[in-house]
Amino acid sequence: MGASGARYRIEVVDTNDPTIQVPFLLVELGDGSEIRLPTVAPKSPGILPRPREPWVGGRAIGLTQQRMARDGIASQEIRFTAIREGRSVELILAELASGRAVIPANPRHLELEPTIIGRAFRTKVNANIGTSSNRPSIEAEVHKLHTALAFGADTVMDLSTGGDLGEIRSQLIRNCPVPLGTVPVYEALERAKGRPDKLSWELMRDVIEEQAEQGVDYMTLHAGLVRDLIPLAAERTTGIVSRGGSLMASWQVANERENFLHEKFDELLELAGKYDITLSLGDGLRPGSIADANDRAQLGELAVLGKLAERAHAAGTQVMIEGPGHVPIHKIAENAKLEQTLCFDAPFYTLGPLTVDVSPGYDHISSAIGAALIATAGASMLCYVTPSEHLGLPGPDEVRQGLVAYRIAAHAADLAKGIPGAQEWDDALSKARYEFRWEDQFNLSIDPEEALRLHDRTLPAPAAKAAHFCSMCGPNYCAMRISEDVKIAIGKG
Amino acid sequence: MGASGARYRIEVVDTNDPTIQVPFLLVELGDGSEIRLPTVAPKSPGILPRPREPWVGGRAIGLTQQRMARDGIASQEIRFTAIREGRSVELILAELASGRAVIPANPRHLELEPTIIGRAFRTKVNANIGTSSNRPSIEAEVHKLHTALAFGADTVMDLSTGGDLGEIRSQLIRNCPVPLGTVPVYEALERAKGRPDKLSWELMRDVIEEQAEQGVDYMTLHAGLVRDLIPLAAERTTGIVSRGGSLMASWQVANERENFLHEKFDELLELAGKYDITLSLGDGLRPGSIADANDRAQLGELAVLGKLAERAHAAGTQVMIEGPGHVPIHKIAENAKLEQTLCFDAPFYTLGPLTVDVSPGYDHISSAIGAALIATAGASMLCYVTPSEHLGLPGPDEVRQGLVAYRIAAHAADLAKGIPGAQEWDDALSKARYEFRWEDQFNLSIDPEEALRLHDRTLPAPAAKAAHFCSMCGPNYCAMRISEDVKIAIGKG
Repeated sequence: MGASGARYRIEVVDTNDPTIQVPFLLVELGDGSEIRLPTVAPKSPGILPRPREPWVGGRAIGLTQQRMARDGIASQEIRFTAIREGRSVELILAELASGRAVIPANPRHLELEPTIIGRAFRTKVNANIGTSSNRPSIEAEVHKLHTALAFGADTVMDLSTGGDLGEIRSQLIRNCPVPLGTVPVYEALERAKGRPDKLSWELMRDVIEEQAEQGVDYMTLHAGLVRDLIPLAAERTTGIVSRGGSLMASWQVANERENFLHEKFDELLELAGKYDITLSLGDGLRPGSIADANDRAQLGELAVLGKLAERAHAAGTQVMIEGPGHVPIHKIAENAKLEQTLCFDAPFYTLGPLTVDVSPGYDHISSAIGAALIATAGASMLCYVTPSEHLGLPGPDEVRQGLVAYRIAAHAADLAKGIPGAQEWDDALSKARYEFRWEDQFNLSIDPEEALRLHDRTLPAPAAKAAHFCSMCGPNYCAMRISEDVKIAIGKG
Repeated sequence: MGASGARYRIEVVDTNDPTIQVPFLLVELGDGSEIRLPTVAPKSPGILPRPREPWVGGRAIGLTQQRMARDGIASQEIRFTAIREGRSVELILAELASGRAVIPANPRHLELEPTIIGRAFRTKVNANIGTSSNRPSIEAEVHKLHTALAFGADTVMDLSTGGDLGEIRSQLIRNCPVPLGTVPVYEALERAKGRPDKLSWELMRDVIEEQAEQGVDYMTLHAGLVRDLIPLAAERTTGIVSRGGSLMASWQVANERENFLHEKFDELLELAGKYDITLSLGDGLRPGSIADANDRAQLGELAVLGKLAERAHAAGTQVMIEGPGHVPIHKIAENAKLEQTLCFDAPFYTLGPLTVDVSPGYDHISSAIGAALIATAGASMLCYVTPSEHLGLPGPDEVRQGLVAYRIAAHAADLAKGIPGAQEWDDALSKARYEFRWEDQFNLSIDPEEALRLHDRTLPAPAAKAAHFCSMCGPNYCAMRISEDVKIAIGKG
């Protein structure tokens, strides 16, 4: 964000608590009106401010946002998200208490501007970043984090598997004003010297606790991939395509024992509750191809995840359910409906899904189609897919491309679901378009710089920004100009 | 197309007629199998071969493909498309005879490799090219045509409004092996010296006939935007956003008379039938914003178009119906269903629709979402939208981006509709992916060059093309490699 004419204003809306400062992107328009869009406040480089310091200081350990909501306590996080979403505190309390929404907010992540994830609210977009062993660079990952934030990531996951994992994570958290998630089994595998058979609950527990101490807000844990399901995956076209899922399956086969995360789930719940880590129950058996979509392996694991979600709700530990993957259009809605039924309405957090397998290099597009559909059917958060999916680790440009595609998908779903206020954004842009207010069009775009660049490519002169046409049709064929003339001629202009 | 390992083979399948040579892209795979994908044969620069010369030589004037199908005549065009689609001649005859499908094939377009458009068949993608007065260059448009063909355009429209329109069109047709469409009112306006009020049926008729003599296969004509509907458009957020629609409305208001294309529709049908021009009845009142979607103006015009489609069917003139535009996800299926009901199942040919208004610079993505959905609901052909939409005339790179996005949308719909053979393509790629046959993955991609480029960006060494991992996860975290080990361990590998 940040084309000329747009500016940020930090608004202090809750007068009862001056520590709650909710940032909005205020866009001042050429017709004298203005519009506020949810955003993360831009930060100076280096260490971020810590808005949550006064919030969590005196708070008892183990007070999850769900437990507070059930006790009718409107935490600062709850009031913050109510203002950001433009919804009532009562609605947020009800959605949190029931488990239909989560606020991933580890009390040790003091830099966080909290976000609510649930299908009654704006659809959220997660950006995966992180090193692989081929390219371990902290600077590159912090740069990707900033790119992700600039293009509107609501949450970020650090999926690093190469370099100094603890140091990378620490740098990312301290630079991250949005919820940050991890997949702890990656660090556990490092400690097990790359041998999946040497993983253990004790190792995982230590990793989870250490990451929690750093301030990680949510963690993907593949507790639902139980032993009975593994033979089903062996029948598939693309087997197991989840990294964490394949590791847990490998451990079970090597040790001839049940998934230790499933066996020790009560201990996991206790640990997560202590730090208010939101559990993101991984779909280790998500389909990796159209051929495997909605098969017995996938749906079998979903049923197991549902039972775990029920136990998390009973414990007052926040929980989300992860979803696919690769799913053709006609099988997408069924995924969302089954998740709601089997998983007691826990927020559904999906990776795409890709609607075709044949789009390497453009998987952000094939999956934006699926993401828009699954969010319309009830998914609450969409994990972006970049053009590099299936081909390599994304760089900053792929992060940008993936985020923009997913913000489009999320907003398309919000329009379809009738999320209050969503259409005002489109209406403001369309009104600006019809009135040839070009600068307003750019400023209201999801990616103002790119909109401006494509306009400048054919009409770079400053005067073109006031012209009643563009180079697509030229001055004599501009439908909107002629349309306005028609309106005047019939006396309605 | 054309990464290493892929090659074209021209197959002569119909042994009864050696003049029918249907090209397929044959991809030979590393596991010894092969797959055939529909394609247009690559052409040498300059004048194209004329496969239809022996077909149309002795044919009587006015024998439209629909009329032949009704008489049970399996024309060469019908047999060609049967082979290309992998469907029976009987099915093609039935779909054409009923008007549920069209084969736009002007007998004067001898370079054409015919294509069938109808919802029983593969979803087709149209690419708009053409000059505007800001950028009139024949060479640039021929280059864009070649780009469009290389990336899989099933049809092309020449929407030129600047430069020598007749010469541009002639060059494009002679270089075009796919159906070529136009919007004749643009040339009529040039002849009326840019004054919409000076348009007339006589002028349009002359333009249509001259373009038909050149070999134009289908023409957009805004015959449904009748006078009663104009006041409805004046109430809208974005008025009239169709160029042709705004011109026809302007003429009616200035002359205080009914749309001459509607008044003279019988003459138009006769003229179109003579040259077997497929009428593409334009939706002059398509919504240009989310706010205007499915409004009375749009649906009122659709009802008028339905009555015109019925008359076209009665006359044996091939007809398609054009559709929106900007439509939020939850209103898309209704568009397709209404079109089928009101327009007697004439093929629906839509522009997107865009599912949000706020994506300038990325409208190919917001509209690919809508395009996939409307094709799933029954649209037969999708007019692509490029990243330049609303901002300027697209260049070759935007043509490529738009086409790839729309080929993804079309294929996603074909999977959802269960078009016979569609999933074989995905299955072949996913099998190659699971078996780490990287070259096969690239060759099976919609855009092999881009897939290869993104892989090379992080792992350029030739050895990486045989590696059992990519830089996304690195060697220790490749789920598919671990998954295969698990499969072997449980005795199913």
